[in-house]
Amino acid sequence: MPAPINRQWLLARRPRGLVSAEDFRWVEAPVPDAQDGELIVRNLYLSCDPTQRGWMESQTYLPPVQIGEVMRSIAAGEVVSSRDPQFRSGDLVQGLFGWQDYAVARAGGTFPISRVTPGVPIETAMSILGNTGLTAYFGLLEIGRPRAGETVVVSAAAGATGSAVGQIARIHGCRAVGIAGGPEKCRYLTETLGFDAAIDYRSENVMTRLRQTCPSGIDVYFDNVGGRILDAALAHLALRGRVVLCGAVASYNDMAQAPGPRNYVKLLVERGRMEGFIVLDYLPRAAEAVPVLTRWWREGKLKDRVDVQHGLENAPMVLARLFSGENKGKQLLKIADAQALG
Amino acid sequence: MPAPINRQWLLARRPRGLVSAEDFRWVEAPVPDAQDGELIVRNLYLSCDPTQRGWMESQTYLPPVQIGEVMRSIAAGEVVSSRDPQFRSGDLVQGLFGWQDYAVARAGGTFPISRVTPGVPIETAMSILGNTGLTAYFGLLEIGRPRAGETVVVSAAAGATGSAVGQIARIHGCRAVGIAGGPEKCRYLTETLGFDAAIDYRSENVMTRLRQTCPSGIDVYFDNVGGRILDAALAHLALRGRVVLCGAVASYNDMAQAPGPRNYVKLLVERGRMEGFIVLDYLPRAAEAVPVLTRWWREGKLKDRVDVQHGLENAPMVLARLFSGENKGKQLLKIADAQALG
Repeated sequence: MPAPINRQWLLARRPRGLVSAEDFRWVEAPVPDAQDGELIVRNLYLSCDPTQRGWMESQTYLPPVQIGEVMRSIAAGEVVSSRDPQFRSGDLVQGLFGWQDYAVARAGGTFPISRVTPGVPIETAMSILGNTGLTAYFGLLEIGRPRAGETVVVSAAAGATGSAVGQIARIHGCRAVGIAGGPEKCRYLTETLGFDAAIDYRSENVMTRLRQTCPSGIDVYFDNVGGRILDAALAHLALRGRVVLCGAVASYNDMAQAPGPRNYVKLLVERGRMEGFIVLDYLPRAAEAVPVLTRWWREGKLKDRVDVQHGLENAPMVLARLFSGENKGKQLLKIADAQALG
Repeated sequence: MPAPINRQWLLARRPRGLVSAEDFRWVEAPVPDAQDGELIVRNLYLSCDPTQRGWMESQTYLPPVQIGEVMRSIAAGEVVSSRDPQFRSGDLVQGLFGWQDYAVARAGGTFPISRVTPGVPIETAMSILGNTGLTAYFGLLEIGRPRAGETVVVSAAAGATGSAVGQIARIHGCRAVGIAGGPEKCRYLTETLGFDAAIDYRSENVMTRLRQTCPSGIDVYFDNVGGRILDAALAHLALRGRVVLCGAVASYNDMAQAPGPRNYVKLLVERGRMEGFIVLDYLPRAAEAVPVLTRWWREGKLKDRVDVQHGLENAPMVLARLFSGENKGKQLLKIADAQALG
């Protein structure tokens, strides 16, 4: 049996505009050994998240990925060797393991899936019960602070985070209005996920439809896209409305050109609040949210949709799906089958 | 002795661009009589505030002034007749009495200066111990929530609100950096008011100077101007920085053209918060702030500068001074001398 190799995608250059395969370089390296306090993780799934576009370009809430460094990514895998007493071979774990077959990890940044959500499919542990669910949960509840009866609007609503936001808003007794691209996604929101209304930004006038679907204004707007949809939501903000800035997909690909939201003046007029939010800040509180999310998921109140693509070699183009809107729900890339189960 | 007349400025049209005399119409009317529950106030001073530009044009946090209606303004005056048991002739009062000699008022919107700050000059009661002081106090402390050692930046810093914000920041143990137009105003900030640094937006690069004067970033930015200075402050926001939107002077005159703040994305990256604030919401809590402000003022920690112009006939051009930056501190217009003292 030949020695295993570690296939890796390195960042080759800073992207301009949309992500492309030329932004990365494929290399094959030996599999590393664990030193004291380290574990070796064999990646099974990579998580594709809009924020990765920001990591490729510039200092955001994390330093940028360096040119020549393995592309940063959340991933889930199994521990294949451990020199940390908290983990053993076969444990399923999640962390920033990157676009590669094998990662060197430390206990600090490693989340033990098989202990926290035993028996849950890895795909679910990586989406609605993972980062995505935590983003929706803490972003909506801690920053948006919706009260029963209020109207919550979310953009990229058929995406992984957006669909969780709308469902959690409903669970909290709010009206949920989703903005998504295309009739299929809009039907999915109202017919499958129970949103009160959906707005198709591709074929409808978002301002007009916001007025129709939110007659008392928007109490919480959960922003996943920035750009003109953020501006339209600001224009329709209710008194003391809150805007949760969770991402700005529309801006990530072309930040230098993006205009600012002119209707920020509504924050003054309505005594509104616009606040940025990074889920990393809330990971220490994951233990408080995951059991709640798991219960809602088991009860069928929180539905999950995962879009699984295959093959590490396809990582660049699978990441690009996020920005073209091709993905249906949480975008994952499966790169290997599990061998051991802890 | 001829019957007194009530000279009034009515709003004649919605302004375009800067305020001009043609936006108003001068009329002379009989002095009204008080009905049950009403008082008649003889105005002595009008307060000129940037927010009046917004009131002239469109629905803001108050309905717009109607065409043909007396121009809305905070004013201070003496009660000349009262049919409300809470007030009597000679009381000095403050309220939204408008651009006219005599106003019909009700107890609800009438603030009794002579009881709350006895012995204080009316000019001071209308500025640092009035709306202006309350705006700085509640806006900075409740929305900005500065902690000792943090850096507070304020724009229009030599103006009435801005100069109070910087001084209150200093009293709370913060570093205060002011942005103002021209070397004279900047010297006033550092030499007279004790600001730690001043930035002259007319002759200096605001971005560069913010980097120099706020090496750890801006913890609280108190925005009085909007526009490119808001954008520069956002770009330099510290982790968990707060932006208090207190006004947008730069936008009030030309709201339709003003671009949005592109650097709002920093709110996401730094988990920042941008929140609008209207002092009217805090007037019910004035009794908690006025004694504190009065103490600071008596101790000389909170200095006041009042720019008094004269003559009701000059109201339009005195209001316009705010937008050209001609005013030095709180802009008041004296329209009559006190006759009675309560």
